[in-house]
Amino acid sequence: MKARLIAAAVSIIGLSTAFAAARNEPIQPIAPVKQINLAQAELGKKLYFDPRLSKSGFISCNSCHNLSMGGTDNIKTSIGHNWQEGPINAPTVLNSSLNVAQFWDGRAADLKAQAGGPIANPGEMASTHTLAINVLESIPAYVTEFQQVFGKPKITIDEVTQAIAEFEKTLVTPNSRFDQWLLGKDDALTPDEVAGYKLFKESGCVACHNGPAVGGSSFQKMGVVEPYKASSPAEGRSAVTGKDADRFNFKVPTLRNVEMTYPYFHDGAANTLKEAVDTMGRLQLGKKFTDAENARIVAFLKTLTGDQPKFDLPVLPPSTDATPRPQPFAKK
Amino acid sequence: MKARLIAAAVSIIGLSTAFAAARNEPIQPIAPVKQINLAQAELGKKLYFDPRLSKSGFISCNSCHNLSMGGTDNIKTSIGHNWQEGPINAPTVLNSSLNVAQFWDGRAADLKAQAGGPIANPGEMASTHTLAINVLESIPAYVTEFQQVFGKPKITIDEVTQAIAEFEKTLVTPNSRFDQWLLGKDDALTPDEVAGYKLFKESGCVACHNGPAVGGSSFQKMGVVEPYKASSPAEGRSAVTGKDADRFNFKVPTLRNVEMTYPYFHDGAANTLKEAVDTMGRLQLGKKFTDAENARIVAFLKTLTGDQPKFDLPVLPPSTDATPRPQPFAKK
Repeated sequence: MKARLIAAAVSIIGLSTAFAAARNEPIQPIAPVKQINLAQAELGKKLYFDPRLSKSGFISCNSCHNLSMGGTDNIKTSIGHNWQEGPINAPTVLNSSLNVAQFWDGRAADLKAQAGGPIANPGEMASTHTLAINVLESIPAYVTEFQQVFGKPKITIDEVTQAIAEFEKTLVTPNSRFDQWLLGKDDALTPDEVAGYKLFKESGCVACHNGPAVGGSSFQKMGVVEPYKASSPAEGRSAVTGKDADRFNFKVPTLRNVEMTYPYFHDGAANTLKEAVDTMGRLQLGKKFTDAENARIVAFLKTLTGDQPKFDLPVLPPSTDATPRPQPFAKK
Repeated sequence: MKARLIAAAVSIIGLSTAFAAARNEPIQPIAPVKQINLAQAELGKKLYFDPRLSKSGFISCNSCHNLSMGGTDNIKTSIGHNWQEGPINAPTVLNSSLNVAQFWDGRAADLKAQAGGPIANPGEMASTHTLAINVLESIPAYVTEFQQVFGKPKITIDEVTQAIAEFEKTLVTPNSRFDQWLLGKDDALTPDEVAGYKLFKESGCVACHNGPAVGGSSFQKMGVVEPYKASSPAEGRSAVTGKDADRFNFKVPTLRNVEMTYPYFHDGAANTLKEAVDTMGRLQLGKKFTDAENARIVAFLKTLTGDQPKFDLPVLPPSTDATPRPQPFAKK
């Protein structure tokens, strides 16, 4: 035990000499998860992967916010019940606890408020909260786990969304190369990547893409200098506020793990980072980046990929004879 | 080190006194995995979870053979590309390496031969082998991993299916309560469960459901004593052999983890074990089980649930600018 403590002390000393002082930048490192209700998060993980929360029994939270793929589906707009084409690009669930609000238009205040939406959206999971609860209540292992976690005999949508949100809070991605650099490790980035970050900062990208999530903290108009020709009918924030001035205002997406969260923009119209950087420069900043500048910014953006959440694929408790069966092909 | 060896020896001695001799039964315990090419299996795990092997970018092997749900989708018949209704119930991938052949009609000799089928089936993943290879070859992390694992500069469908099959060989479920009982642990089963097994054996169920997988080793006619009114157009083995005598002959499904692999039969028509046991008794054995007998057999069947595969959800390497994009909503 003594030997271990000494080794730990030596390693801390080693750390403090190898790292320079942390940098003071408009982007801050992602903090590791603290203050999690682990029991809720473990239950929430099961619910996140459980397609029985959908009418078809085929679509789970993880279908469109796939944790193997940066917390997105990597499709322009998502596939909903009965292969309906969604109106908007699925935003990543990674680091979403850092967002000022949830959904592109911010219509949900937090992760808990968000989690109930897709379950009951006829274009997404197409179930109802009542049916989802009926399914869960028919499965003894779930009933027991809810009872243990929440100390109540009855399951309600409130506990379901609370558990899913708690799991989602664990989905942060610390330790990207950029964060290592922010924390003082000079050689974590190449000179080209540092130059890309400087250009990103000096061009004004950080005006919106800042903070630990490199975005997610404000709503901004898509198309400031030039109008954006969207392939989606979504009008953004005005749908929530009712104000005409908020038309085409969308939540600024996080750029964390952006290499994994293609395609880009609320309509998923940009397939590549090169295209996204070019469009953002022209439409938001009135700036045409040269190919070399564009490549440098893209090189920087790729340093924002952090440690992906690591956990066992959950095993779900089986349905019972009393469980309502999925209706994937029901006519209405 | 010495203390640990002594502890291990004590525990082995403890084991041999607590366990009676192994039982000689028509069902044998599932053996743990041996002789796996781990590098192939790790690559195969990624491919198994990668929806980019489908045209839509939405359907992976795991979509219909979901390892959170007993290696099935728990739907009557599966959902394919564009929400097409599949003709047949998705069989479990768990312990499928023990099957005499793959698919309900046995048209694939082994797991490797099976794995290429759904990728290119227009009603399932709806891609082509050429497109799937193009996708993988555009992703440097895959190219490197294939090169390391197979030692060849080019990826072909042969390596893809080999890797997936090797992963699938790891998906065995040892250590069920029934296996513990088979290995001599008398109190692993309740008297009711033992009675259920005896009834299962004496009624003739073991004629087909035998061996380590409790099935999977032969093709048998569905509807021996009475004809089966299937809700699926599939005619089984005759589609492979061309012989009229093989009509409605299907591979006997494994009963391992059968509590998790509902609904039952090749057409998924039986929602519950109770229903499945009743139908099997009447149609295959000419035997009407009483409610008490049925319940006893079901109690035995539930002891066949083994340790589910346990592994980290794989993180997939991101697509690049050169990767062909998914076409979920393409008109043809």
